[in-house]
Amino acid sequence: MQYANYASPPPAHGYGAPMRHHSNASHMSHHSSRLGRPQSVAYGGGYQPGPPAAPAGVDPMLWGYFTSVDVDGSGSISVTELQRALVNGDWTQFDLDTVKMLMNIFDVDKSGTISYNEFAGLWKYIQDWQNVFRHFDADRSGSIEGRELADALRSFGYNLSPAIIGLVERKYASEPATGYGPPPGITFDRFVRACVVVKTLTESFQRVDTDRDGWVQLNYEQFMNIVLSAP
Amino acid sequence: MQYANYASPPPAHGYGAPMRHHSNASHMSHHSSRLGRPQSVAYGGGYQPGPPAAPAGVDPMLWGYFTSVDVDGSGSISVTELQRALVNGDWTQFDLDTVKMLMNIFDVDKSGTISYNEFAGLWKYIQDWQNVFRHFDADRSGSIEGRELADALRSFGYNLSPAIIGLVERKYASEPATGYGPPPGITFDRFVRACVVVKTLTESFQRVDTDRDGWVQLNYEQFMNIVLSAP
Repeated sequence: MQYANYASPPPAHGYGAPMRHHSNASHMSHHSSRLGRPQSVAYGGGYQPGPPAAPAGVDPMLWGYFTSVDVDGSGSISVTELQRALVNGDWTQFDLDTVKMLMNIFDVDKSGTISYNEFAGLWKYIQDWQNVFRHFDADRSGSIEGRELADALRSFGYNLSPAIIGLVERKYASEPATGYGPPPGITFDRFVRACVVVKTLTESFQRVDTDRDGWVQLNYEQFMNIVLSAP
Repeated sequence: MQYANYASPPPAHGYGAPMRHHSNASHMSHHSSRLGRPQSVAYGGGYQPGPPAAPAGVDPMLWGYFTSVDVDGSGSISVTELQRALVNGDWTQFDLDTVKMLMNIFDVDKSGTISYNEFAGLWKYIQDWQNVFRHFDADRSGSIEGRELADALRSFGYNLSPAIIGLVERKYASEPATGYGPPPGITFDRFVRACVVVKTLTESFQRVDTDRDGWVQLNYEQFMNIVLSAP
């Protein structure tokens, strides 16, 4: 039940204002560019007759987002289309491992693409995480730095030592750490992945730690299985 | 001694032909583009007087590569410059986690940039891995698929079950797996990262398994420390 497991961020609701389309956390964009100017979602281009009208009973705004991400009009969203559409507050694309994680969660029928119904779940998930991100991005820098990360993980209920929080910070920072100064910040995509990884690893540990004494015994196969199953 | 630990691929020599600049494994390119045509390394542009001549005792060809990657002529290579220069056989950029892994190995003085001397190590490392990659890419597809991955990991001495090899294959594939057919192939950058991750995790496990019975006892802190320390 991977879907249920990941379906919402640790604190699903209640952070900050409702998502705005152009927040500083992340964007869904039709043709995003690493260096280009922010572009809003375009509903079809001049070169094509425009997307099909929303089917009956479908949220027209969400349908508009869906058809704008489905650039080739195939009726479902490919990995490439999803990666082009998902950009961080600094307009960098989501990294592949995060896109693959999202596909693994929301491509429920394992078709390799995201249908409209699957997209509705994905969209909600990203909105919820945007609220979480903006809540913990206390200095509004558009990335999550050391203290902000510690606050977020603690609020999710993880009791991690400063050393472990430091490892998470360095592993998911958008650049390598240097010998001086704190590690660079964590962009939205990598923050979501970091949190899901901590959640997945912690739950896997707890599943093996049946007597809840904080210790587990693992053989090599179990160990590799747990680690490689995390996003 | 992270440097020594990672300094060479499991089988450092002896695979296939010596690296050609335009192999199908990966490239170093001055201005690479995801979708652009292959471009060769340009030594300086028309807008600048060209790179400084190679210092005495320095390999002129390697110096040429170094100065072409050091686009701003600062005398050292930044993360951004390195990521722009490193592309796979299909001209996709190396992903950030692989670039960070390379920086962590070769930025020995933790300055946050790669000096010429550090670059010499990095260049050799990538050449060695290119030979490994081309050796195991038996069908010359430019990516490593299931059987090829199994052959590579077995030849490196890892005794992994088919289930674990399958996890590695799906985790490092360049696209999510679908419900039907095998997972997509693994590009050069992700293949190197997959192999270093398997090596790091295996060595960490063995370090704790002092009596070599194939079992370890770990507390939560140790478990998280091992997992989050891997690239």
